[in-house]
Amino acid sequence: MTPPFTPLVAQLPASVPFVGPEAQERARGAAFTVRAGANENAFGPSPKAIAAMSEAAAGAWMYGDPENFDLKAALAAHHGVAVERIAVGEGIDGLLQNLVRLFVREGTPVVTSAGAYPTFNYHVNGFGGRLVTVPYAGDHEDPDAILAAVRAEAAPLAYFANPDNPMGSSHPAGRIAGLIEAMPEGAVLALDEAYAEFADPSAVPPIGLEHPGLIRLRTFSKAYGLAGMRIGYAITTPELAKAFDKVRNHFGVNRVAQAGALAALGDQAHLDAVLHAVAAAKARIGDIAAAHGMTALPSDTNFVTIDTGCDGAVARALVAALATRGVFVRMPFVAPQDRCIRVTAVSDALLDLFEAELGPALAEVAPMASVAAG
Amino acid sequence: MTPPFTPLVAQLPASVPFVGPEAQERARGAAFTVRAGANENAFGPSPKAIAAMSEAAAGAWMYGDPENFDLKAALAAHHGVAVERIAVGEGIDGLLQNLVRLFVREGTPVVTSAGAYPTFNYHVNGFGGRLVTVPYAGDHEDPDAILAAVRAEAAPLAYFANPDNPMGSSHPAGRIAGLIEAMPEGAVLALDEAYAEFADPSAVPPIGLEHPGLIRLRTFSKAYGLAGMRIGYAITTPELAKAFDKVRNHFGVNRVAQAGALAALGDQAHLDAVLHAVAAAKARIGDIAAAHGMTALPSDTNFVTIDTGCDGAVARALVAALATRGVFVRMPFVAPQDRCIRVTAVSDALLDLFEAELGPALAEVAPMASVAAG
Repeated sequence: MTPPFTPLVAQLPASVPFVGPEAQERARGAAFTVRAGANENAFGPSPKAIAAMSEAAAGAWMYGDPENFDLKAALAAHHGVAVERIAVGEGIDGLLQNLVRLFVREGTPVVTSAGAYPTFNYHVNGFGGRLVTVPYAGDHEDPDAILAAVRAEAAPLAYFANPDNPMGSSHPAGRIAGLIEAMPEGAVLALDEAYAEFADPSAVPPIGLEHPGLIRLRTFSKAYGLAGMRIGYAITTPELAKAFDKVRNHFGVNRVAQAGALAALGDQAHLDAVLHAVAAAKARIGDIAAAHGMTALPSDTNFVTIDTGCDGAVARALVAALATRGVFVRMPFVAPQDRCIRVTAVSDALLDLFEAELGPALAEVAPMASVAAG
Repeated sequence: MTPPFTPLVAQLPASVPFVGPEAQERARGAAFTVRAGANENAFGPSPKAIAAMSEAAAGAWMYGDPENFDLKAALAAHHGVAVERIAVGEGIDGLLQNLVRLFVREGTPVVTSAGAYPTFNYHVNGFGGRLVTVPYAGDHEDPDAILAAVRAEAAPLAYFANPDNPMGSSHPAGRIAGLIEAMPEGAVLALDEAYAEFADPSAVPPIGLEHPGLIRLRTFSKAYGLAGMRIGYAITTPELAKAFDKVRNHFGVNRVAQAGALAALGDQAHLDAVLHAVAAAKARIGDIAAAHGMTALPSDTNFVTIDTGCDGAVARALVAALATRGVFVRMPFVAPQDRCIRVTAVSDALLDLFEAELGPALAEVAPMASVAAG
């Protein structure tokens, strides 16, 4: 028999937002030598976080505190906001899933940019929402287009990333604040700030900016180097923060992650060191790109989006050629941004390997590139 | 403004299936000396699992493998089933949430026992399902009543725990197999086997028993001592296992948990040691109960449900009196099972403390007990 799926589930594709690098490694029969595709923090978490997690491992027989009390208190102090405005969840992915569930049922219009974060779309589709996409303007998500679509569709939920993934770009804080303040009554803006710590401060609206239709999403996966631990948080209104309690998996944040996040947050010196290392790596990626006749786009994240100067077919071939050479990178999904490849900041030793493989990989795709250029 | 919640979410209570012991500790201003309320494995995970998690902590900057490939392969080998029959998720709680989502929409009837696992009910309510409850028969969940309700309501989903929480009882494997085989076409039985490793083998149907309407839920939280890591698995049909890919948070299982679970599964000698320690602790809890004029019910789990011989009011007072003395235990929610308290198997040192506090706590509630007995 076919299991008795709901009609919604029955028609959902078994889609996967991202294929993991491990699956690619299994398919090619070898590990990647350069893991620079998932915007993980290759400079790693704070040694204090590693120590805290190692220590917490022995206590892994206990459930974590379902209220995430200590971490929420530390986050409130760190950001200078009331603890009632914070929700903790299983990474931004987990928070987005619950956020979508709070607002989206079958047919609900939800606004995002074509080519923005696929996992958000996955969740919207998963709850039967109707995705309304607007194009990027240049290589930026377009606040005006988002706002126009929210108004036109009377959408209760919109997604906007600042800084943006996959393009690495950001808007000035004032432009984002303008978007927030213009959100109509009855609409919520999910402002994905996964990369905020990497950004120039002028691109991050003040945390004190409160708006009834705003939820800001932050994570320990990127600058804090804890992607594997699945822990993130939201800063929003007390009412919306509390609403997560209606649908979340209360014991869903793991105990070792709680300990790691708390220690990571407490080691801002390590965060600074990471930011410096990332900046240096991004500069070098830019140099490598330029030396190969390509252009690095400005980045306010921990990755560099490189414009190949060709089209999506060439960029896809380049990503594939790099993969066969042991270099894992990704790329934007949608034209014209898919002319780019996206390279995560990694150590100099790994950038040496990237540099060594880039030339041969480009040579391999050159026949396609000349057709595209011709 | 009120956020634009869906009508379903707007009417959901901000209910919490369980208040964590940490919240109670914060309220009383002191830590519990005996943590024996959440059926955690106080004997802890395998030292090999702790070592694997400590080692994995340094790699926490990487996302875990979203396919859980290595763990699924190890589970398939361990159980002797095809890997396509296994789904891995964020503990049984996470798996139940996704399972409910696959089958339940607003108004869908879902069958369980009154007093069975509250988190299942939380998920059913969260997706708008209509809970249909049947009473326990004696202190057992009642397969016949479950089956009758599934048939009467044409319910696509039913929940049954074997061994049972909160009563600790189990049915013989043949009775469970009979329930499975009698499930009507178009109905799925969620067989919660969180405590299966603790059970007499005669109470666990063979893993080879396949049925199109069966999903068995297992966890690393109990016998394997990894409650804090949030990792469990399901054994079901390939079609249902694959359907989780439609709704799950693909990167939701954390990387350190994957490493810990793999190592824990590989250390069956430690599991055996845990089972022996748990059996000894349960025997002693039974003795302590008897010495205080109460009766320990038979247990196929890692906890002992103690019949106070009084009513729910007395049992609740006893749980509260123990808590003020630093002893954290829980109890069944529903009458007449709420005449009992539920004590997790813990170390002898902690049982000494439990034993020392039980007499004074009983003395404190004695006036209520004589009224109840009178």
